[in-house]
Amino acid sequence: MNIKQVAARLREMDGILILTHVRPDGDTIGSAAALCQALRQLGKEAYLLYNPEITATYLPYAEPYWAPEGWQPKTVISTDVAVADLLPENAAPYRDHIALAIDHHPSHGYFAAESYVDASAAACGEIICAIIRELTDITPAIALPLYVAISTDTGCFVYSNTTANTHRVAAELMGCGIDVSGVNKALFRTKSKVRLAMEAHMAANMELYDNDRVVVMQIPQALCEEMGATMADIEELSSLAALVEGTDCAITLRELSGDKVKISVRTGARVNATEVCRLVGGGGHRAAAGATVSGTMEEAKQAILAAVAKVTGV
Amino acid sequence: MNIKQVAARLREMDGILILTHVRPDGDTIGSAAALCQALRQLGKEAYLLYNPEITATYLPYAEPYWAPEGWQPKTVISTDVAVADLLPENAAPYRDHIALAIDHHPSHGYFAAESYVDASAAACGEIICAIIRELTDITPAIALPLYVAISTDTGCFVYSNTTANTHRVAAELMGCGIDVSGVNKALFRTKSKVRLAMEAHMAANMELYDNDRVVVMQIPQALCEEMGATMADIEELSSLAALVEGTDCAITLRELSGDKVKISVRTGARVNATEVCRLVGGGGHRAAAGATVSGTMEEAKQAILAAVAKVTGV
Repeated sequence: MNIKQVAARLREMDGILILTHVRPDGDTIGSAAALCQALRQLGKEAYLLYNPEITATYLPYAEPYWAPEGWQPKTVISTDVAVADLLPENAAPYRDHIALAIDHHPSHGYFAAESYVDASAAACGEIICAIIRELTDITPAIALPLYVAISTDTGCFVYSNTTANTHRVAAELMGCGIDVSGVNKALFRTKSKVRLAMEAHMAANMELYDNDRVVVMQIPQALCEEMGATMADIEELSSLAALVEGTDCAITLRELSGDKVKISVRTGARVNATEVCRLVGGGGHRAAAGATVSGTMEEAKQAILAAVAKVTGV
Repeated sequence: MNIKQVAARLREMDGILILTHVRPDGDTIGSAAALCQALRQLGKEAYLLYNPEITATYLPYAEPYWAPEGWQPKTVISTDVAVADLLPENAAPYRDHIALAIDHHPSHGYFAAESYVDASAAACGEIICAIIRELTDITPAIALPLYVAISTDTGCFVYSNTTANTHRVAAELMGCGIDVSGVNKALFRTKSKVRLAMEAHMAANMELYDNDRVVVMQIPQALCEEMGATMADIEELSSLAALVEGTDCAITLRELSGDKVKISVRTGARVNATEVCRLVGGGGHRAAAGATVSGTMEEAKQAILAAVAKVTGV
């Protein structure tokens, strides 16, 4: 399928429900919201499936599009969902009936009847932008969530996935007259006092391995509780470890309830993060991947350090 | 003067010395280096005046262009220099003989025989890019320092000065085949352990004023000495205060030697940073300005808080 064929398929659809992934980020929500708005501009009925884990950060972009309770879709599509296991629980009735998946993860699982996957896109939002260009005008109501999608998945144009096309799309979206300074301020230039304190704690307790090339930061559940951290406070905390000078493999471990640990891995050229995370049952991108494992923080740490050692041959 | 006229003037020149400002940042160095390279591509003799305060961060971009000791220029120009007082001391012999100043500061002092000032440009590098387009091909040797210029002055496309044109220029530069991921990693995604510790200290000791809308962070000289901080460690530390949730006026005070204090002010829409800094003898942009004052840290703090109160009418 090419972009024009995806656009043609979308033109044929109606009664469309758009699915996003668990622990929704700006890309899955922004892509879904922009596509939903574009479909509505074509006169179609389209909604997003409510995502129970959405944080206050992204809620404003999704809220206008939530499907009403009990509404029955005719067609189901997904944006930025790599594998069906990353769909939220309330998507269970739809997971075997997804007509079209649009995604940019190299680890995409081809769970839908048809798929459009471009792993060279920094964000799923870049693909959605190309599709929408074929369908309708990029209005401010489309441009704003698309900007959220591409800016969040590139850390505001700083991650190594950023390409000339990412900037070209950003220029096009800003040219629609949207004011991105409020978005940038809220998403990238605001830290709560709780977050500043958590970052200071993580930095003070970081551990270095493999000749100081591997850094491990930990977010114990007790720390979150003690500080009264919200989900928004801990969102993207894994980017902190990746800043430590001299390291090229940054591991962040976050203790979840039920004896589980969420592992985030950010890497430089030497280490393939997807390969590392695959060894513990996860996936993602070359420079940013993740996994959720069972066990204690210490067990998770040992498991992911062993995976890094295996992949790097150290 | 328009861009074409500036380009025409540059074509007439030879034996060109380019001046940068004190405490050189990526924009003054990147703009000067890119312009110097472009002039050399035209077959001209062109150099940068050595800037004694350059840090390791920007040295690689300037080093190939430093003027040899004793070299006598025929023409002198400046990039990103707002007022003549911001020229380094070794520029004293040239300050009354500057043929052309290219700048983007609204507080530009028109100290040169001719000036091209565009305050709508996020970075001086955007202007330089437009000029170079008229002169020669944008080769990778030009594109890389220009990328450094525009990315540093926009905090990597996150500050409110970023426009659609900023992204358009970034797309054009990346399209030249330069690899910006190394630049982004070094400039925006690397923090030394000393810097992480200093940020933690500043965050722990921050003070809030004016119903928590004004935040003050301080960098005492004793802290820098105790931690063995280099200039690179404290570069752009003023961006930390601007992150504190709920504030729209972030003041950072850095104690310099000789009983002086460098004040940095970053503001939201409510507060004009340039107006605030003008009241204590400084200048800059609407959302980011600075000043260097004599006195103790406490005196500097009282002076700048009084200036904020006067400008905001609180």
